[in-house]
This record gives sequence, structure tokens and C-alpha cells, in this order.
Amino acid sequence: MKNYFSSDFKLGILGGGQLGKMLLYETRKYDIATSVVDPNPEAPAKLAANQFQIGDLQDYETVLQFGRKVDVLTFEIESVNLEALQQLEKEGKKVYPSAETLLKIQDKGIQKQFYAEHQLPTANFRLFTSKAELTEAIIRKEVDFPFVWKACKGGYDGKGVSVIKKQEDLIPLPETACMREDLIPFKNELAVIVARNVSGEIKTYPVVEMEFHPTANQVEYVLSPARISAEVEQKARKVAMRVSEAFQHVGLLAVELFQTENDEILINEVAPRPHNSGHFSIEASYTNQFEQHLRAILDLPLGETQQKLAAVMVNLVGDADHTGNVHYQNIEEIMQMPGVTPHIYGKRETRPFRKMGHVSIVHQDINEARKIAEQVKKKIKVISKK
Amino acid sequence: MKNYFSSDFKLGILGGGQLGKMLLYETRKYDIATSVVDPNPEAPAKLAANQFQIGDLQDYETVLQFGRKVDVLTFEIESVNLEALQQLEKEGKKVYPSAETLLKIQDKGIQKQFYAEHQLPTANFRLFTSKAELTEAIIRKEVDFPFVWKACKGGYDGKGVSVIKKQEDLIPLPETACMREDLIPFKNELAVIVARNVSGEIKTYPVVEMEFHPTANQVEYVLSPARISAEVEQKARKVAMRVSEAFQHVGLLAVELFQTENDEILINEVAPRPHNSGHFSIEASYTNQFEQHLRAILDLPLGETQQKLAAVMVNLVGDADHTGNVHYQNIEEIMQMPGVTPHIYGKRETRPFRKMGHVSIVHQDINEARKIAEQVKKKIKVISKK
Repeated sequence: MKNYFSSDFKLGILGGGQLGKMLLYETRKYDIATSVVDPNPEAPAKLAANQFQIGDLQDYETVLQFGRKVDVLTFEIESVNLEALQQLEKEGKKVYPSAETLLKIQDKGIQKQFYAEHQLPTANFRLFTSKAELTEAIIRKEVDFPFVWKACKGGYDGKGVSVIKKQEDLIPLPETACMREDLIPFKNELAVIVARNVSGEIKTYPVVEMEFHPTANQVEYVLSPARISAEVEQKARKVAMRVSEAFQHVGLLAVELFQTENDEILINEVAPRPHNSGHFSIEASYTNQFEQHLRAILDLPLGETQQKLAAVMVNLVGDADHTGNVHYQNIEEIMQMPGVTPHIYGKRETRPFRKMGHVSIVHQDINEARKIAEQVKKKIKVISKK
Repeated sequence: MKNYFSSDFKLGILGGGQLGKMLLYETRKYDIATSVVDPNPEAPAKLAANQFQIGDLQDYETVLQFGRKVDVLTFEIESVNLEALQQLEKEGKKVYPSAETLLKIQDKGIQKQFYAEHQLPTANFRLFTSKAELTEAIIRKEVDFPFVWKACKGGYDGKGVSVIKKQEDLIPLPETACMREDLIPFKNELAVIVARNVSGEIKTYPVVEMEFHPTANQVEYVLSPARISAEVEQKARKVAMRVSEAFQHVGLLAVELFQTENDEILINEVAPRPHNSGHFSIEASYTNQFEQHLRAILDLPLGETQQKLAAVMVNLVGDADHTGNVHYQNIEEIMQMPGVTPHIYGKRETRPFRKMGHVSIVHQDINEARKIAEQVKKKIKVISKK
């Protein structure tokens, strides 16, 4: 019999960033004991864990020894040592999401091939083992411009992705394994969070719409629900659910999608964990994404995914011109606006475009929430103190 | 200029029970540094505080030394050393709520006199310095039966209150200072949480309705909003606001009220802190009571108090027949019900009627929420493990 609450059970979390921190709100609510490991001695998730240790998440021995001391192991970041997870599974440890899923997601080339094998809709692509191989294909005129270049490994927050219009655009790119992908003319970038528990119970959250910053290639607003037709909503949720089922995923899977100009739904990429596009759920959903992740990996019944209210999420990123001890300018002004909740991740130092927090705006009407979000965005600045 | 977020500012909290624990969710969300002191080395609020120390809250030196190390001092329990708070205020420390307010609330006799002096509506009463004095008044036929006996100090969760129908009912009562109060025939027991910040901004939460257990004299269900007329709602909020203003209160004030048979509103008693009757706000309100308390004592703008959805709160108390390591029987069954969120306070040991947690139920319709709450109540049991 499962007994997680106020018991000797221990959940291990690889990574102590803001996702880990927000996951800990839920382990505290349920009084589930946790251990966290992160390389940063001042990691945001240091404080509310029962144990916290400093360690390199890419190091085989660190992850192995950490995993052996807990009952269930999860992660809040994909770049962790995969071989250690595989070894832990061999030893009978419960690792959710599984090493197998992570293997298929860590490398975007393998991820794309997985979609192709499972007839999951995604943009056409071709893989290259190196930049040299890609250049050769271009010279042989096997590759048309423009296209999207993606590094197979290590991409994050817009890094590792470029639109290539002519051969010279390749010059600044690294020498790594990569792919070319069709440049899809799309109406919207959407995302769906899918929760699937150990027993296979599955639920999707409403489709969200991601508005990107015109130049910084970072998400500026996440709107939930997305301003799309019921038909597109259904199609997107169905595709996302098929992806989770194909992976036999356990935990949360954030599925990023393109809505094409003729309303096709194509998979862009996935993240096997709570996701920035689900932060709105803390204030707006019956069950927030962090509680849902816990429920899924502990094989508890999944919670309702419907919303109490419409919501917009705004990322709080460091101002482009500031580095140093953080100061949240005008935070009191935004706290006066109705339905506005700031989340401060707890990073002492701001840097240009560093994710320092986010702000949730809830309202009965998504268009009103969007207006307030714009006021929030204009008002608050993440700067350094003098 | 105020700078609380990811800064060197430190909030001190006297008491580390479940109220302190839930307050810490909000200090984490805002990244406000905290120190907590509590006599229990396994206090629920031990974990997410930046510092935690073991100490006696009634001890002058402990409270004084603790208070000197923080920038703002608050409490989650009323039974703390008052003289230390007075000394800290003399030294210029910000103590919210103030020592002056606490002085008037700690002693129910002083509290009642305060209402009388400020023409605030409350049941008629008479104070006695001892049980002997009360007995004497009864012998002189100055006191009619039945009446409500209340101890001036130390009452909690139904302790310190008795309905006295005849002289023999006095026998089990302690020898302490006490009062007799008119026994009010009432329709409803209501409560209103009032938030008032340092600058005097004031907001009330919707009126909640408390349904008591027929025998245990503990609140069984809290319904928000209360099933009362708009007129009674307005009257109750107005009385509650007048109480907060009269105290010049800073922080949350939970005002418990009687709705009499002819729809008068009488003050029963108050608590100068987040309160059991406000737990529903975590899931149901734009701003939950713990965040609101923080905003008030840090002189930040108060948040919206309206609700996203109707809500019922059920207390999880230890089963009458169980003592020992806690087990939450059937918790998975209630987690399957829509809109149901359990909160586990993190007490390892259950005892008869000990408050171990609570469950929130949210729904569009308060009557549906009430039905689900009854199913929750019937299903979950707080027992000890074999």
C-alpha cells in the first residue's frame, strides 16, 4: 500500500531551479519528504527540501548515489546523466519520467525520428552528423533555403535554433550534429501539457497560446485558454495525448505545437517535466501542473485540469542593460492591479534575459487578462540595485 | 524604499504550526527571507524558513532576542510573551499586529470591554475575577440560567467555553477569571477576515459560514460564500471592518460573528492572524489569506479578496480512537473527486481531534461543493498505522 503523506517515503529531484522550487510547494502541501541535488549552492529549490546536496547532474556517480537513497526519482531539467538513470532502473529504482523517454527527448534528432516512426505530425526534416555534412548537402543542392537549423543537443530558450536563409548564415553555427527542418508558416505557437500516471491514466490541460518577443526569441506571454477554435483545440489536445501515449510517458509532458496556416497541428518539440507554459495553472487551474506531476509520478489519481478563470503568464526576465543584485522596480504598482500575482524565483543576481520570475494574471475574460498583462509587462523592470 | 524581494530583509514569525507553514508558502513565492521560532523541533513550519530555532514563545528573553534579529516581527499564535513585544516596539521594532492589539485580544474579558467601549455589537456580559466570584453572584441570584461561561484566557478550539444550565454545571470548570455571556439564539455562526495594512488600506473577504460538529464543538465545514442574504452579508462585513478600524489593526483579523434569529450581527470573538475560516482562500480567492497577511504587515498594496469559485473547507482531525503514527485512510479516493485538494500539515503523530490537515473543495455552485464536502468527510479517516 502506498503511503506518501507524513511518512518515511522519499522523493528525489534532480535539479533545484525554479521548477524544482515550485514542485516543492506541492510536496510541502502533501508533506512528502524530498531530496534535491543541484550544482548551485544557492539553488532556488534549496530551502524547502528535506535534504539538499550540491552535485553535478551530469556526473554518473553523483546521480547514481543520489538516486539510490530515494524511493522515487524525478528531474526538473533534461540535462542529467542518462547512464546513471539507466543503471538505477536496472537496480529496480522507480525513475519517472523513464530513462528511455529521456533518451528519446534529450537528442532532438532521435526525438524527430521517433515522431516519424509513430506517424506523429511534425515538420519534414533531415539529420546531419555534423555541420560539415550539412554544408556538403547544401553544395550538392540537396537542401533548399530558407530552412530551420536545430542543434540536436543542448538547445534551450531559443538557443540552438536558427532560421537559415542563405549559406553564409551557417558561419556562426557550432560544428555539432544538427538537422534541417522545413520552415513552417504558422498562425500560432501552441502548447499542451499532458499528464499521465504510472497506471496509464491520462489528462490534458487546455491548449495555451505562446506569444513570442519579436526579437529576443523568448516567450513573452502565455495565454490560457488559447484564442483558437474548438476544432483546433480538440486536434491539438489529441496530438499531444498521442505523443504522451507513444512515449508511454509517466509524469508531465509539455508538447509545443505549430498551428499552420491551414490549421494543421505539427509537433515542434516536447519537454518531459513541468513547463513554463504551465505556470498559469498555479492560480488558474483546479490542479496546478506541479501537483499534477507529483500525482502522476506517485501513481495517485490525476486532478481536474479545467480552469477556474482565464489566465495570462508573463515571464520576468533580466533587463538587457543590467547585471548585479536584483531589484524588482515597480513591483508594488503591479501588485495593485486586480488578479496579478508575481512569483519571484529567488535568484540574487540578475543578468540580461535571465529568467528571474513570472507574473500570473487571472480574469473572467482572456482578452481583459491580456490587456492587464501588457500593463504589467510595461510597468515592471528587473534591474540591478545601485 | 522598501525592498523585500530577494534582499537582506528578514521577517520573523513567532510560532511554527500549520499557519506558519502556510505563510511560508507565500514568503517562498515572493522570496522573502524568514526566521521562525517554535518550541517543537519538528514544527510544521521548520522546513521552508531560512532560519528555524527552538524556543519557548512565552519566554521574555527568547522572544526579545529573536525579535531583535529580524526587521519585521509577526506571530501565528496569540499565546506569545507580550512584554517582549512591548519592549521590542519601544526599541523601534515593527511588530504587526501590535503588542497593543494583542493585549486587548489575549484576554477575552478585556476584548469584550473593548467592544463595549467602542459600541461594537456583542452579547451582554459580566466579568468575574474568579470562579468563586461567579458562584457568589449566582447565590445572590444576580445571574440567570442558562448562560455561556468563558474563561478569560487560554481558550482554543472549543476549550474554555461552556453552556451553563444549572449551578452544578460549574463544578468541572477551572478557578480562573471568567465571564458570563448571554446565550444567544442564533441562525448562523459567521466569520469575516479583514485585512488592513500599515498605511490603513482595508479590505474584507466574503462572509463565511461555519458549520459545527454537533457534539465535538469544533468547526466541521466552512462555506464561502455563506448562504445568507446580501443585506446580512453587508452588515457582517461592515461590523468586521469597524472592529479592525477600532483596533487600528495591522495584518489579518478574523472576526467570528453570530447571526441572531432576527438578523442582528454580534461579535463573538476575534483572532489577529490567518485563521482556519480562511483556508478556503488558498484555492478559491484571488489573493489567499496568507499572501494577504504578508501584504498587510509589509505595507504592500492589498490584493483582491473576491473568489474565483465557491468553496467549502473540511478540517482533517485525528480520529477519536487513534493515537500514533498518522495514516490518511482513503486519501486517494478523495483525490479523485473533482475540485478536492487535501492539505497535510506534517504532524507525524495523530491524537483524538488533533488538527492534522484540511481539505478544500471548490465548485461553481456552493451547494454542490457542500455535497462533495460531505462525501469527503465520510470517506477520509485520520488514523494511526498498525
